[in-house]
Amino acid sequence: MHVRDTKLTVDDITGVVGIIPTPSIPTADQPGTAFSVDLDEAATLADAMVRGGVDVLMTTGTFGECASLTWDELQSFVATVVDAVAGRIPVFAGATTLNTRDTIARGRRLGELGADGLFVGRPMWLPLDDAGIVRFYRDVAEAVPNMALVVYDNPGAFKGKIGTPAYEALSQIPQVVAAKHLGLLSGSAFLSDLRAVSGRVRLLPLETDWYYFARLFPEEVTACWSGNVACGPAPVTHLRDLIRARRWDDCQALTDELEGALETLYPGGNFAEFLKYSIQIDNAQFQAAGFMRTGPTRPPYTEVPESYLAGGREAGKNWAALQQRYASLAVSNH
Amino acid sequence: MHVRDTKLTVDDITGVVGIIPTPSIPTADQPGTAFSVDLDEAATLADAMVRGGVDVLMTTGTFGECASLTWDELQSFVATVVDAVAGRIPVFAGATTLNTRDTIARGRRLGELGADGLFVGRPMWLPLDDAGIVRFYRDVAEAVPNMALVVYDNPGAFKGKIGTPAYEALSQIPQVVAAKHLGLLSGSAFLSDLRAVSGRVRLLPLETDWYYFARLFPEEVTACWSGNVACGPAPVTHLRDLIRARRWDDCQALTDELEGALETLYPGGNFAEFLKYSIQIDNAQFQAAGFMRTGPTRPPYTEVPESYLAGGREAGKNWAALQQRYASLAVSNH
Amino acid sequence: MHVRDTKLTVDDITGVVGIIPTPSIPTADQPGTAFSVDLDEAATLADAMVRGGVDVLMTTGTFGECASLTWDELQSFVATVVDAVAGRIPVFAGATTLNTRDTIARGRRLGELGADGLFVGRPMWLPLDDAGIVRFYRDVAEAVPNMALVVYDNPGAFKGKIGTPAYEALSQIPQVVAAKHLGLLSGSAFLSDLRAVSGRVRLLPLETDWYYFARLFPEEVTACWSGNVACGPAPVTHLRDLIRARRWDDCQALTDELEGALETLYPGGNFAEFLKYSIQIDNAQFQAAGFMRTGPTRPPYTEVPESYLAGGREAGKNWAALQQRYASLAVSNH
Amino acid sequence: MHVRDTKLTVDDITGVVGIIPTPSIPTADQPGTAFSVDLDEAATLADAMVRGGVDVLMTTGTFGECASLTWDELQSFVATVVDAVAGRIPVFAGATTLNTRDTIARGRRLGELGADGLFVGRPMWLPLDDAGIVRFYRDVAEAVPNMALVVYDNPGAFKGKIGTPAYEALSQIPQVVAAKHLGLLSGSAFLSDLRAVSGRVRLLPLETDWYYFARLFPEEVTACWSGNVACGPAPVTHLRDLIRARRWDDCQALTDELEGALETLYPGGNFAEFLKYSIQIDNAQFQAAGFMRTGPTRPPYTEVPESYLAGGREAGKNWAALQQRYASLAVSNH
Repeated sequence: MHVRDTKLTVDDITGVVGIIPTPSIPTADQPGTAFSVDLDEAATLADAMVRGGVDVLMTTGTFGECASLTWDELQSFVATVVDAVAGRIPVFAGATTLNTRDTIARGRRLGELGADGLFVGRPMWLPLDDAGIVRFYRDVAEAVPNMALVVYDNPGAFKGKIGTPAYEALSQIPQVVAAKHLGLLSGSAFLSDLRAVSGRVRLLPLETDWYYFARLFPEEVTACWSGNVACGPAPVTHLRDLIRARRWDDCQALTDELEGALETLYPGGNFAEFLKYSIQIDNAQFQAAGFMRTGPTRPPYTEVPESYLAGGREAGKNWAALQQRYASLAVSNH
Repeated sequence: MHVRDTKLTVDDITGVVGIIPTPSIPTADQPGTAFSVDLDEAATLADAMVRGGVDVLMTTGTFGECASLTWDELQSFVATVVDAVAGRIPVFAGATTLNTRDTIARGRRLGELGADGLFVGRPMWLPLDDAGIVRFYRDVAEAVPNMALVVYDNPGAFKGKIGTPAYEALSQIPQVVAAKHLGLLSGSAFLSDLRAVSGRVRLLPLETDWYYFARLFPEEVTACWSGNVACGPAPVTHLRDLIRARRWDDCQALTDELEGALETLYPGGNFAEFLKYSIQIDNAQFQAAGFMRTGPTRPPYTEVPESYLAGGREAGKNWAALQQRYASLAVSNH
Repeated sequence: MHVRDTKLTVDDITGVVGIIPTPSIPTADQPGTAFSVDLDEAATLADAMVRGGVDVLMTTGTFGECASLTWDELQSFVATVVDAVAGRIPVFAGATTLNTRDTIARGRRLGELGADGLFVGRPMWLPLDDAGIVRFYRDVAEAVPNMALVVYDNPGAFKGKIGTPAYEALSQIPQVVAAKHLGLLSGSAFLSDLRAVSGRVRLLPLETDWYYFARLFPEEVTACWSGNVACGPAPVTHLRDLIRARRWDDCQALTDELEGALETLYPGGNFAEFLKYSIQIDNAQFQAAGFMRTGPTRPPYTEVPESYLAGGREAGKNWAALQQRYASLAVSNH
Repeated sequence: MHVRDTKLTVDDITGVVGIIPTPSIPTADQPGTAFSVDLDEAATLADAMVRGGVDVLMTTGTFGECASLTWDELQSFVATVVDAVAGRIPVFAGATTLNTRDTIARGRRLGELGADGLFVGRPMWLPLDDAGIVRFYRDVAEAVPNMALVVYDNPGAFKGKIGTPAYEALSQIPQVVAAKHLGLLSGSAFLSDLRAVSGRVRLLPLETDWYYFARLFPEEVTACWSGNVACGPAPVTHLRDLIRARRWDDCQALTDELEGALETLYPGGNFAEFLKYSIQIDNAQFQAAGFMRTGPTRPPYTEVPESYLAGGREAGKNWAALQQRYASLAVSNH
């Protein structure tokens, strides 16, 4: 169980870090819609995450539509999630904006609303080099000293990978407790970044990479991130239990199952193409899985080739089947 | 002289479209600075542009730090510029944000403040394909029907070039009167985009490309954009007069002079590298030219290799010399 | 008419530089075919180029399948072309290989066979930087001092654009008389490279870019390259005559016609995609135009999406119609 | 021990696959040098590899200067290596050329000279898509049926990664026994390619990645490739013994040592920059390690920033220290 104080540390980030979408109402794709969030469903979803065994909750990343929510919507959504979670697990609220001062202002307000920490990508109008990245996170950490930070390392969104030397510097900032990482897709960078942070920051691979890194570095890679939890968290919490039990062969088998279920998510197997439309494709996946209720995506991220959506829906249905299988299982530690 | 009504058309966009930075106070680089704009200097600069012969004014693009101004600052700055210009030339206010609804909300407010039109880049967290781009501008145009739009086609900032088919579609939107274009740097795209818009949208090349396109298409390429006007507008207004007089050899000579003055702006001749730091480098250029007064850049765009700044400063000084030479000249039409 | 001596100079490179494919026999796509060149057709084609008014002939570039001819085939083909041309116009033989010494050895032999010069791209297993590029061409020029060189600047094939400083250095090598350039597709590089070579090297744009650069720089851009001549040279020689007569409006109209004819050549308008399959697509174009006879492409460049071929064929047919129209016209100099 | 017949299978590829450079004479960097290979040193080096415990030998890849050897040199070098190895371990000779037919002709000749198999990259003037890649290897395999093939998957050299579906198809060609793979640097591709070949092809990671993949897939990843063996094979053969003994903690420690020794090899930690100059940098590394004797690199791959060479030399010296430490150790299987 998580016993938390005012400030979270790296040790509070273990297990499944679930990232949730922002449920939308049926007219959310219209620019004339003033308030597009389905707050009832938001509360239901957040509660379902906690009851489903997710260990840490994060909101308003890419598919959480941080970019296309109004500030008013974002506040209401985070407040709703925080209330629904009711302190049972830590909540990190997404506070990525176009500049340092806006992120600080939002971060303060989200802290007042009860978020335990912030999930922050850097401004992306121009790219930032490693010196710029480190200064950005340092400025935020100093201005919002009572909130923990999860660094959002998404090279596609933020125009470049955070370099290994920057990871070393970021790991010296006390508030930086974790980083959402590209994992295997970053090539050997996960390994060098892991070395650089030296246990001071929890590097989070995707759930489908988790087993590999956990087996190789069981003391350090004790958590993963997952957006698929919104299609049902049981497959991922099951994987967590298998990893903790060091049942490696079962981990490999479940990882293969997850990979198989998600095979159609990337159009033509092309991850770069997926990244261009990830908001739209992930939304189709969530809708098809049926674990949560959500409407369309918000403008401008509404256009997408129909065949890409079909791939997302198939992945969603496949995951729903896994959810059904694993929801009733508990891992015995033998 | 521009006689303007409620709505501008493509014919209102001729001559020099000057884009100005947002003058900053000395502590603008500190994230704790609540209000970073030097409004006095903003008024002075806007007035100097009009008196210097600039034909259209645009604000808050990339080096205008649209990204790193607070919304409060942006409103104050635009209101100040509009007041200083006092209807003498059209003013387009930058309204790029992370989503459609925020751009619409900002656009409405900037219209209330007196801006004649909006200078709008698309949201850039994820890239938009041509269908997404067209829908975005259509949504904005429909929601802010009384304002003219200048499309901001900056492939580096907004993750991709606007395609020629999208230009064709955008040119069907009545409010879209111009596009800030990459010009020669886009390869043959300027030519195909020019064909696609068929006179319905003014494509604006950079001032150093203007002569080439104006000579080839004198009826269509009747305007350019320039950020260097903030180092002194005379070289560019002089070029405009030479182009209008069809004194082509003089145009080539002046173009070569401008190119020569700006040679050190791109680090190692590398435009891609310049793009990563254009806010910081342009600021150094403006400061060194001394035509206007400005402080440091705003966070997070504050870090930059020192040698890059040196190149920017040299370009600024070179331009200042040209400003001095051309400020007193008038072009006779012989 | 060209009166040539042992060594050509930049002044010998004016007008239409035609690049021809290497006609293939019907089984050329089989790896078991020992000799794949249709030498009869090669002689016919070369003669047709001269009689059609092409000013300079080049062989065995990319679509001339320099890469996939055996050395024996390449020698026979060049010897046949040289004999057919019989000194009427200069012939540059392609001699690109994987290293300096092989290019020198081939260059010597092709000189013995009667080629006036070499058309040389740099080795491309690894990229070469500007220093490496300059040394490569200097080594070749010193080793084959009696042959003129046309530099082959194809960023896709040879892994990078030749930089402007390298052009400056290359222009100091007496044998370097011309460069096949990417033209408009290189953005503003054509202009800076033109400045760098300062009249010592003829920069050759594509025929569809020629008018633009010729109008802006009529003394310097006095030649173009064209592979479309193998679909019939008349449209290009007609353009040459219009350019020489400075009938600029007619140049623009013909350029638009050529662009229109070639519109389907680039799959989905995507030049980068065309470059991946240019050998196969160009072959389909040549076959469909019917001006020359040729069989399939040689291995390994045989696989290509069928729809790409269809685009190539349409372009070939369109060009054939232009050939018919312009073959009988002569430009009067009024 | 390797008992070999006419044809090798995937089971013959286990342990350390050493790739050796082609020792050069002092004037090898001059284009006038007709024969640049130091055959005495070649024989010594090949013998040292066998006696040092390398399990399979490959020649004439990228740093083996396949590109810049003359065909005469390549034959002499391979014949010398084959004679020196004298059947003790399998020898794969590099036979990459610019086209299918040349690779087949070379492959036949190298077989006559005694090579057991071929190490083959695809032609790279234009990129090949997956269909083109599969056809290329199939054509080679059919034409040289008695030789085993190692696929050379080098995305930088050959313009693109071999796709997972192509791996599946290649694994159906009996002669294809292994692939030199990018390993961790390919992101998650190693895992999907491993699944695709399903034990029919030995995927070879770099020695510094080997432990990770061997621990996760001990039955399948039973071999690695290494070019560092030319700086002394002992660290790699020691790693092999540790992997076979499943002494995982020691594997991690040794892997960390290897990584540390090689840290300066990539200029500024930039692998892409290394790839542009890998021939030159690797040569500096080999020279500095002093395990073998070699002269300069061959043209055109002679130019390189001096600081890059310094990084290569430091890596060579570091490796030499490891060679000294591990040369006398034997792994006990406890």
